[in-house]
Amino acid sequence: MIVIGEKINATRKKIAAALESRDADHIVQIAAEQAAAGADYLDVNGGDPREGREVENMKWLMDLVQAHTETPLAVDSADPAAVEVGLSMARRKPILNSISLEQHRLDPLLPLVARHECMVVALLMSDDGTPCQVNDRVDRAGKLIDRLTAAGKQVSEIIVDPCFLPISADPDSGRMVIEAIAAIRSAWPDVHIGGGLSNISYGLPQRRVVNLAALAQCIWAGMDAALVDPCTEGVMGAIYAAEAIAGRDEFCMTYVTKMR
Amino acid sequence: MIVIGEKINATRKKIAAALESRDADHIVQIAAEQAAAGADYLDVNGGDPREGREVENMKWLMDLVQAHTETPLAVDSADPAAVEVGLSMARRKPILNSISLEQHRLDPLLPLVARHECMVVALLMSDDGTPCQVNDRVDRAGKLIDRLTAAGKQVSEIIVDPCFLPISADPDSGRMVIEAIAAIRSAWPDVHIGGGLSNISYGLPQRRVVNLAALAQCIWAGMDAALVDPCTEGVMGAIYAAEAIAGRDEFCMTYVTKMR
Repeated sequence: MIVIGEKINATRKKIAAALESRDADHIVQIAAEQAAAGADYLDVNGGDPREGREVENMKWLMDLVQAHTETPLAVDSADPAAVEVGLSMARRKPILNSISLEQHRLDPLLPLVARHECMVVALLMSDDGTPCQVNDRVDRAGKLIDRLTAAGKQVSEIIVDPCFLPISADPDSGRMVIEAIAAIRSAWPDVHIGGGLSNISYGLPQRRVVNLAALAQCIWAGMDAALVDPCTEGVMGAIYAAEAIAGRDEFCMTYVTKMR
Repeated sequence: MIVIGEKINATRKKIAAALESRDADHIVQIAAEQAAAGADYLDVNGGDPREGREVENMKWLMDLVQAHTETPLAVDSADPAAVEVGLSMARRKPILNSISLEQHRLDPLLPLVARHECMVVALLMSDDGTPCQVNDRVDRAGKLIDRLTAAGKQVSEIIVDPCFLPISADPDSGRMVIEAIAAIRSAWPDVHIGGGLSNISYGLPQRRVVNLAALAQCIWAGMDAALVDPCTEGVMGAIYAAEAIAGRDEFCMTYVTKMR
C-alpha cells in the first residue's frame, strides 16, 4: 500500500497561513506527524493564485520538508512551473500529483514525466469532464497508461486515480468507482490504483465513517494507494485491516506489528 | 440489511449469570439497548449443559424478552427441543439460528423449519467440517437451499451463513469467504447472506478494527445480514455507510437519517 499524507496543502487554512508567514515550525510538525503515523509519501501543495508565488512556495516547501524528514514527497500543483521546480529539487524519487487527460495538464507535464525519475498519479479527468461509468474509466486509464509508458514510465510507476465522486450527489457513484477499480486491477495487474477517496463522502454527516468504509471496500476491489490524512483516527488501522482481510498481508504480520 | 443483535447469549459471562439468577432486569436492559441501537432481531441463546435446563432457559427468555420489546427474536440453541420451544412461543415471525448440513442438526431441525413460520440461518457446516474454498461454500449453499425450499421455505426466508474463519490462522480465509459471498449473491439474488463475522478477527489485536473493515468489504460483496453487537461503537455506522457506498441506500437517506 502506498499511503500519501495529504495534509501539507494550501487549501487547508492553517497551511495557507503557515505558507503566508513562512512558519516553518508548523509545516515541519505536520510533516513529522504524518511520517510517524505511517505516510510513505508526503504531498506538498503550495497553491497560490498570485503571479510566481506558487513556484516560490514549492521551493520553500521542498527545501524545508526535505531538511526535516526522509519521507519522499508528492509534488502537487496546478502550475506546471511549480511541478518542474518540485521534481527538480526532489532528493528521493518523488510522485508527480497529478497528470490527467486534460490538454492543459497533459501537454506541459508529459515532457516533465519523461525527463524526471518519478512516479506519477494519472487522474482520469479529461476535457470531457469527470468519468461516470466503469468503461469510461477503464478507457481513460488505458489512454493515460499508453501515453505515460510511451514517455518512458513503467506501468508500476503509475498510480491511476479513478476519480472519487460524492455519493450524496449520485447514489451510483460509489458502486461505479469501486467496480472501475476492480476492472482496472484486472486489466493492469502491475499498475497502482488510488487517490483522494474522501471526496466520496462530500455533503454527508460524519464523513469519517463513510471514508473508512470506502477505504476497506476500495482496497478489497484492488486499490493499493491512497491520498489520506494518516493522522485521522482509524485511517491507518482500516488500511492494515482491509489489506489483511483481502489476503495481502502474509500472516497478518503488518497488521499485528502496527496495531500492537 | 438484517441486523441480528448477538448479545443475549449464554457464552457471555454476564448473560450466563443473569440466566442462573433469573435476573430479568439485566436481560431486559440488554434487549432494549440492542433494539435502540438498530437491531432488527434479537438473538436469544440460553445454552446450558444441564439436562432440561436449556429448554427452561429458552422459555424464560422468550417470555421475558417478548414482554418488553416488539423486536422479533432469533431462536439460537444447540438443543433441538429448545429450538422447538422458542419457535412455538414466538409472537412475531422469528429466525431459526441455525440449521446446517451436519446430520445432527439437519435431521431434527428440518421438520421444525417446515412446521413453523420462520426465517432460517443456513450455516455452511457439514459433517466434513468447515468449508475452505469458494466452490465448496457455493455447493453447500445450494444443498441447504434445496433442502429448505423442499421443506417449504422461500429463498428469501433463508440467510446463508458462509462460515467466517479467523484470518490469523489462514491468510486466505478472508478472501475466500468474501469471494464466496459474491458467488452466492450472484447465484441466488434473493437469498440473504450473513452471519457472525467477528470470528474473522479471532486471535488479532484490536479486533473491532478488523471487524469494521470486514463488515464494509462483505457488504460490498453482497452480504445483507449480520449477527453483531449493534451497541459496539461504529458497527451500525459502518453498516449504513457500506450500504450507501455500495448503492443500496437510495440518496443515502438511511445513512443521513441515522447518522444525524
